[in-house]
Amino acid sequence: MYKYEDLQDIINRAITNMSYDYEAEKLFDPVKYLMSMGGKRIRPVMTLMACDLFDGKVEQAILPAVGIEVFHNFTLVHDDIMDRSEVRRGSATVHKKWDVNQAIISGDVMAFIANECILGAPASVLTDVMKIYNDTAIDVCSGQQMDMNFEQTSFVSYTDYLRMIELKTAVLLAASLKIGAVIGNADPEESEKMYSFGRNLGLAFQIQDDLLDTYGDPQIFGKKIGTDIVSNKKTILLIKALELASGDQLNTLNHQLQLGEFDNEEKIAVIKNIFNELNIRSAVEDMVRQYTDLAYASLEEVKVKKEKKEELMQLTADLLYRTK
Amino acid sequence: MYKYEDLQDIINRAITNMSYDYEAEKLFDPVKYLMSMGGKRIRPVMTLMACDLFDGKVEQAILPAVGIEVFHNFTLVHDDIMDRSEVRRGSATVHKKWDVNQAIISGDVMAFIANECILGAPASVLTDVMKIYNDTAIDVCSGQQMDMNFEQTSFVSYTDYLRMIELKTAVLLAASLKIGAVIGNADPEESEKMYSFGRNLGLAFQIQDDLLDTYGDPQIFGKKIGTDIVSNKKTILLIKALELASGDQLNTLNHQLQLGEFDNEEKIAVIKNIFNELNIRSAVEDMVRQYTDLAYASLEEVKVKKEKKEELMQLTADLLYRTK
Repeated sequence: MYKYEDLQDIINRAITNMSYDYEAEKLFDPVKYLMSMGGKRIRPVMTLMACDLFDGKVEQAILPAVGIEVFHNFTLVHDDIMDRSEVRRGSATVHKKWDVNQAIISGDVMAFIANECILGAPASVLTDVMKIYNDTAIDVCSGQQMDMNFEQTSFVSYTDYLRMIELKTAVLLAASLKIGAVIGNADPEESEKMYSFGRNLGLAFQIQDDLLDTYGDPQIFGKKIGTDIVSNKKTILLIKALELASGDQLNTLNHQLQLGEFDNEEKIAVIKNIFNELNIRSAVEDMVRQYTDLAYASLEEVKVKKEKKEELMQLTADLLYRTK
Repeated sequence: MYKYEDLQDIINRAITNMSYDYEAEKLFDPVKYLMSMGGKRIRPVMTLMACDLFDGKVEQAILPAVGIEVFHNFTLVHDDIMDRSEVRRGSATVHKKWDVNQAIISGDVMAFIANECILGAPASVLTDVMKIYNDTAIDVCSGQQMDMNFEQTSFVSYTDYLRMIELKTAVLLAASLKIGAVIGNADPEESEKMYSFGRNLGLAFQIQDDLLDTYGDPQIFGKKIGTDIVSNKKTILLIKALELASGDQLNTLNHQLQLGEFDNEEKIAVIKNIFNELNIRSAVEDMVRQYTDLAYASLEEVKVKKEKKEELMQLTADLLYRTK
């Protein structure tokens, strides 16, 4: 079995060796800039791990795995424009370093570079892999749309929120694992279990992300606490709180959400206090646990020897028991 | 043999029947809006004609043909943002009717809807079709990048201009025909001739487009004459003129290009006068003729009976001998 670091190295080497042997050099500068920034390469590593799990030839999964990473970075370029984000992985975002038009067209070409990589899957499974990938890409766009819709609306339901994070984040982890399994010649049932594992892992991860923004240890978390509260972001914590609050608590919450000017620390303290009164933290921790359990259960059901699952178990633990 | 109108009907029906059976309805509203606007459907009709030319089953080419049309419309949505165009086919552009963010994400999803359609190609040729399509998509992005670069530079060479219109426009016509031929089980050599036919046709068409903007009959052309001159657009006419002009003519040209404020009609008259002195019109008409001849020559070389080529000959004539 390969270790995480081995597979991350394989992916990083494949990304470094990508040739952008095209005209119009300027089109690819932002692509190289973003792809060389690093990052954990979780998705492509998962593709390789899933392939390895079923004794597939990991080399056959490298190009499609890189394709998934390119797609993920494509969504980052365009999401950063839409969210007006200026920093990504500690550096300027593409539209900030170049401009919006450059970020649109360089993002676009990444979608086709991703296609090209996915087309590197073995011929015997190419159509399946391409379909899984493409359905997922449409899902991810739908997730981004739901997220954009949420910004225009005052009320977001718990169900809609879960579906949004499922589409925007979880399905790509799920597809990364399923594609690896398919390339590893897993039976359709086993590939589905890998999808389910990734989906639940993705949900747990994303919900925990909301939790850490409010309850993470700033020393360990490495970024400011409470930014979601300050920006009125409709996180699972706020959605739960609006669902459970009544009377004075609800009035205070709504008042805080409508403030035009406020002191950040004060707003964080007031809202966090309501969260605490409503036991939001433990309710959301329960959710994380619930999806983590579902993820582990799916992985356990996969019909391969337990020892072989160790790397994926470890990766899951690293992702979910992170305090940062 | 099918007639143009029959094939256009087939394409329009297929587009009308497309199901957008996805979540996040708002994501697909701009897609439906744009796809239902009509247009000549030249590219998908060419795919079907090329398939028909080789006695292929036209039904097998419908989905990939629609995919090419969806891709073409995807480029329009994003190009319109980048060019700040407000009107498309007589209606508001997507970013004008909705907003830029909506146009980015709805454009993005069109790239994946296009993939989905292309994946509808027959299994025996699917990989080939997907690769032709995807290489072309990367070319089109490169063409758009070159076009953007031209706006930032004062000098554009004749060679660079030709390569830009080849990438931005001609290769998609070429790929439309080649994909149809491949689905029609044409030999690789014959498919290449269809590509060459489309490439030269596309070049002739685009050069003529530049010509019509300055020399078209406004009554027949249906739009204002001289808009390219007013906007200093680096058309083949201006590039040729800058190449040929010297002395006073060159000074006048450069002066006109640098004017901050000016009377549109006066600027059109002055520049058109220089074009006339330099015989730009006939030089560019020669170019159109040259590429038209090359297009016809490629089509003639295709090894099928002459009668079968009639529809494509007619379409070529309609496109190139248009006065509008």
